Amino acid sequence: MYKLVLIRHGESTWNLENRFTGWTDVDLTPTGLEQAKNAGRLLRAEGYDFDLAYTSVLKRATRTLWHALDEMDRTWLPVVHSWRLNERHYGALQGLNKADMAKQYGDEQVLVWRRSYDTPPPALEPSDPRSERKDRRYDRLKPEEIPLTECLKDTVARVLPFWNEAMAPAIKAGKRVVVAAHGNSIRALVKYLDGISDNDIVGVNIPNGIPLVYELDADLKPIRHYYLGDAEVAAKAAAAVAAQGKA
Amino acid sequence: MYKLVLIRHGESTWNLENRFTGWTDVDLTPTGLEQAKNAGRLLRAEGYDFDLAYTSVLKRATRTLWHALDEMDRTWLPVVHSWRLNERHYGALQGLNKADMAKQYGDEQVLVWRRSYDTPPPALEPSDPRSERKDRRYDRLKPEEIPLTECLKDTVARVLPFWNEAMAPAIKAGKRVVVAAHGNSIRALVKYLDGISDNDIVGVNIPNGIPLVYELDADLKPIRHYYLGDAEVAAKAAAAVAAQGKA
Repeated sequence: MYKLVLIRHGESTWNLENRFTGWTDVDLTPTGLEQAKNAGRLLRAEGYDFDLAYTSVLKRATRTLWHALDEMDRTWLPVVHSWRLNERHYGALQGLNKADMAKQYGDEQVLVWRRSYDTPPPALEPSDPRSERKDRRYDRLKPEEIPLTECLKDTVARVLPFWNEAMAPAIKAGKRVVVAAHGNSIRALVKYLDGISDNDIVGVNIPNGIPLVYELDADLKPIRHYYLGDAEVAAKAAAAVAAQGKA
Repeated sequence: MYKLVLIRHGESTWNLENRFTGWTDVDLTPTGLEQAKNAGRLLRAEGYDFDLAYTSVLKRATRTLWHALDEMDRTWLPVVHSWRLNERHYGALQGLNKADMAKQYGDEQVLVWRRSYDTPPPALEPSDPRSERKDRRYDRLKPEEIPLTECLKDTVARVLPFWNEAMAPAIKAGKRVVVAAHGNSIRALVKYLDGISDNDIVGVNIPNGIPLVYELDADLKPIRHYYLGDAEVAAKAAAAVAAQGKA
């Protein structure tokens, strides 16, 4: 049996300001930093150890990983960054306030933008200063690989090659893997692993900074999954994520 | 022309306590952390950018790198850890005070232990609790690869394969490389690059947290090297390192 640990980054400045973040590279808040450390302390206390860590190229995930590894005295672990683990691209909504958008367009429209499986938010113009097309970290990608908006279906489509080509082979080779990533890149993995339907994934919310453990069989099919620490805390944190898009 | 940037970690708790550190995994002091950030700020201000970072498996070097990259907004850069970039192993001296040892054995003996090219300090017993032979991070090494003591000649011998097999090919492939490492692993590289004699390397001291830039030709032969920032500050810091082993 294999274990895979997924951690959504701690609270970011734009989580706190209730803004759509996507690929915008905002940092953790002091609370988020504490959540990251706490994730590491929980993992250490429960006897978890790792051989390999994956994260996105966004600093809120990287910093979450660094602080968690630091608490585990594992600052020397190999860390692999991939843009494929980035948050879902939020298109023209990036930087805008979720509640403002709900007032302007209604709760229902915002829920569609936030949670519809296959309807992306309005796209950024390639010339928009918010576009990542000139960001050095995406230099090696083809321009058309750098999204201007994404629905979760798009995120699944770019996360899965990384699962299939990097993560799954590493896990099968016996590497104990921890992933520090984002609400939607983790939802993409969870949808795939648990075979959650396009409709049901709408109701799945990943809380910040609480390690989510997947126990996997020899074929990497999930046996069960659970959050570390207090289950009630994890449930409340997930409910808070679900409530973010309300006016 | 290529540029290679070498950074010795910021001040560590045992630098401050004037103790022989070697492979003991002590952390940075608040001053050391500030030195690390300052290295990043200097690099950023001077327009440096990188594609790849190397560091040891010791946290004082890793944390120096993390803070420098953070200041450069390059937290997403690939980082490769290697035990071959670790500090020189200080054998049975690890943990002991440099000035105490100088009182007990004389300045000259301590200078031999600190700076002799080919005389290692007394070896640790393999059963010594200070030995790294049971440390998980060295699991993949053969027991005889994990030193019980090293002179600089030994350090050069285990740093060079990493230079030849990893760093030099990456630089020649056009990667802009930054290395956060240790006084003696950097001295090993510097000795090799500049062809410094076994005698003259004794007088070379690397200050903490000041980026050392090597400009290299197409064959990776040094054209020139210099410290970033105030040259007088770098010279004073190097002199302070040289003075550490005095009674």
